[in-house]
Amino acid sequence: MFQPSEDFIYRNIANNLEKKIADGVLMLGDKLPSVRTISSEHGVSISTVLQAYYLLESKSLIRSKPKSGYFVTYSPKGFPDPVTPSRPAQTASPNLTEDVISRVYSQIGRKENLALSLSVPAMELLPVAKLNKAMTQAMRSLEDSGTSYEIVEGNPKLRRQIARYAYTWGGNLNEDDIVITPGAMGALTYCLSALVKRGDTIAVESPVYFGILQLAQGLGLNVLELPTCADTGIDTVALENHLKEGRIQVCLLVSNFSNPLGSCMPDSHKKTVVELLDFYGVPLVEDDPYGDVYFGSHRPKSCKSFDRTGNVLWCGSFSKTLAAGYRIGWVAPGKYKEKIIKAKSYQTIATPTLQQEAIASFLDSGRYESHLRKLRSVLHANSLHFLRAIAEYFPPDTKVTRPQGGFILWLELNEKVDGLGLYEEALRHRICIAPGRMFTLQDQYHNCIRLSYGMGWSETVETGLRTLGKIVRDWR
Amino acid sequence: MFQPSEDFIYRNIANNLEKKIADGVLMLGDKLPSVRTISSEHGVSISTVLQAYYLLESKSLIRSKPKSGYFVTYSPKGFPDPVTPSRPAQTASPNLTEDVISRVYSQIGRKENLALSLSVPAMELLPVAKLNKAMTQAMRSLEDSGTSYEIVEGNPKLRRQIARYAYTWGGNLNEDDIVITPGAMGALTYCLSALVKRGDTIAVESPVYFGILQLAQGLGLNVLELPTCADTGIDTVALENHLKEGRIQVCLLVSNFSNPLGSCMPDSHKKTVVELLDFYGVPLVEDDPYGDVYFGSHRPKSCKSFDRTGNVLWCGSFSKTLAAGYRIGWVAPGKYKEKIIKAKSYQTIATPTLQQEAIASFLDSGRYESHLRKLRSVLHANSLHFLRAIAEYFPPDTKVTRPQGGFILWLELNEKVDGLGLYEEALRHRICIAPGRMFTLQDQYHNCIRLSYGMGWSETVETGLRTLGKIVRDWR
Repeated sequence: MFQPSEDFIYRNIANNLEKKIADGVLMLGDKLPSVRTISSEHGVSISTVLQAYYLLESKSLIRSKPKSGYFVTYSPKGFPDPVTPSRPAQTASPNLTEDVISRVYSQIGRKENLALSLSVPAMELLPVAKLNKAMTQAMRSLEDSGTSYEIVEGNPKLRRQIARYAYTWGGNLNEDDIVITPGAMGALTYCLSALVKRGDTIAVESPVYFGILQLAQGLGLNVLELPTCADTGIDTVALENHLKEGRIQVCLLVSNFSNPLGSCMPDSHKKTVVELLDFYGVPLVEDDPYGDVYFGSHRPKSCKSFDRTGNVLWCGSFSKTLAAGYRIGWVAPGKYKEKIIKAKSYQTIATPTLQQEAIASFLDSGRYESHLRKLRSVLHANSLHFLRAIAEYFPPDTKVTRPQGGFILWLELNEKVDGLGLYEEALRHRICIAPGRMFTLQDQYHNCIRLSYGMGWSETVETGLRTLGKIVRDWR
Repeated sequence: MFQPSEDFIYRNIANNLEKKIADGVLMLGDKLPSVRTISSEHGVSISTVLQAYYLLESKSLIRSKPKSGYFVTYSPKGFPDPVTPSRPAQTASPNLTEDVISRVYSQIGRKENLALSLSVPAMELLPVAKLNKAMTQAMRSLEDSGTSYEIVEGNPKLRRQIARYAYTWGGNLNEDDIVITPGAMGALTYCLSALVKRGDTIAVESPVYFGILQLAQGLGLNVLELPTCADTGIDTVALENHLKEGRIQVCLLVSNFSNPLGSCMPDSHKKTVVELLDFYGVPLVEDDPYGDVYFGSHRPKSCKSFDRTGNVLWCGSFSKTLAAGYRIGWVAPGKYKEKIIKAKSYQTIATPTLQQEAIASFLDSGRYESHLRKLRSVLHANSLHFLRAIAEYFPPDTKVTRPQGGFILWLELNEKVDGLGLYEEALRHRICIAPGRMFTLQDQYHNCIRLSYGMGWSETVETGLRTLGKIVRDWR
């Protein structure tokens, strides 16, 4: 006879309770049945029930109060509203309030502050000891201990591993399709400097990662910000209109869990975008550093998966999952491969030899997948903690994105609130946030901020969010 | 009474013999007095005389033949003639025979070939074990083991060490003047992308390192090649004329032991160039990765030493002295610092964290200076071995540069010889050289090649040069 495992049973109990919470049957603040009750009702051990409760607690859905049992801490209704799609002006713009970015950037990463502004995982979430081991091994196994130039394309083992890993979610690539780059920003730099020239127009999401705006400005490009929905990404109709008019020379999209909106384009949108751009002969630079950090059951596909003509340049990175300080990313440049290799060769010659070998062996050992599983689970729980805390501490008119992956929340605050002023005020409380104005070239998103939940949940973070919420509530 | 030390005596004997060889008193092929004769003549021990002979042998001036004693292997007259100053066309040119560079580049660094084409030291000349130790120490001492982003400017300890080291030869810098970059090429990329735009004109030496031509082409710049002397660098009068006419927007010079001519600008030229460019408001990007590899008594100054207004961007690298694969260089950008930091920030965010810390501690330990002493001595001896071998194996009409530092010889062969054909033919013999046509955008240097002597002298190298010489001699 089939005996369900303990593992199966506790997940089943947890799922049932989660559904009741989601449906509002069990409401915010409700007391859950006691562990003893469930145990006798289901005929399972106390420890199995406790496992189920721990799982729900790790997802920020319930919380134990000493001597009084478990309470529901989550409610779909109790959450802040989601944000509305963006509506940037539909003219390309070369100007940029540079000093906003520079001012904020100089504070980003300062260790004395609570860093709610960085879109990378905190060190405690990284497999640092294992990476150190891989580095030491790389020094031993490489004939030159990594002192010589790597070939321009990058370490073949690493390229093979990236291709192999992409294959697990439907990316049909091999090692010759990949070029290693200094992080994803290095990949974007090679792509844009190889594909377009000063005065050309680049289409992006809006709001968009400020690094992309700085890069575009540095290359003298005009930036066309597309209307973007926090769930499904850019408005494909708007994109098509601009393409028809010949207004765009290159399109750069963060396809999965974009920064800062957290949007993830559905497969149908990805396919449409890829086909549209191919039809109009406009290259798609796909920035996909967050795709591996999904909260659902599987990794979302890349636009590259729908690319039949080599028109998509798929860029990724280990900065968001392993070690930003290693500066290792990649691009699968499709038919633009020769141009990209040339750009890399004249701009930087090669990427650091040791880190490539170390990451290659880390991936080869199968450690990457188990690390990612842990990382995703912590970040997912964390995103729920953040949503709960924002519901609790921020004013009721606060709107927040509902990311299904990545590290980032985008908050739309009351019209009165000035994100830049909020940034300054928060910094006085040693909290670092990213004001919304950084993520556009236009006069918008003044009342928005970006928060990162890429660190372990702690009292310090909870207190930080409480403080931030109070500053927003008290805004005159 | 003063007793001269053994050390003093053997050097004295060696110096006397070296002078006789230089003056032609002892001629190529002459037999030297026997060790026993010198010993009794000078009243010194046999071992002291042997030390003197070993020194001369290490400089490639004499050689022992088994059972027949020592012979002179050097002659000023026996050496090939030096090359004549270059005379490129004095119009700026945007076109480039790209495929020459790409074709050759794809072979560079292949381990199966004798690499006479790379301007970096071979691994056997590098302190690999000590660097590995420094890397391991860096993983331990950095709180995050180098997994996080370094700050944009770069590791402060490393910047301090670079400034401190520059101070020893008269560079008046401090850590805030330095920005760490991905090698010197990364520094040049930041400088040019920050300072000039598509369609602007850059003035360079001629012949000039092909990476600079590729970078200029990638950025859409016109290249003005200046007449250049293999001893003293660019023709400053030609530079002034172009400046007067307003034809140049930026000037990029390899000030010390340039690649490929090996020229080293005298101090007076450096001062003139710095003052001229400052007067005409044209920035000077000074590429100085070879300055530390001098064969004379002291390091030549940088142009930066003569900079009073912050108009010089001094770029350097550890690629030519420690580890090209670490990808660590720097720029002291003077008054353009803010622009350079911005360019670095949007193009690559940061340079690899671990390597910066490792090199910083390597420099701090004082190991760098002792390593450089050894490196210089080996390379100097090597350059003489190469000159001797070329005199021996190449046709008498071969002209060769006389580098006073660096890794590179530039050879001007008979007009009939086609450098590109020679490259192909040499490759069939598993010898990799760099054809002269790579080092210009113009229709010149067809009969020139660049050879690197950056490896330990060996039978393989001698055989390689003999083979190469034979190919040249047999050229129809």
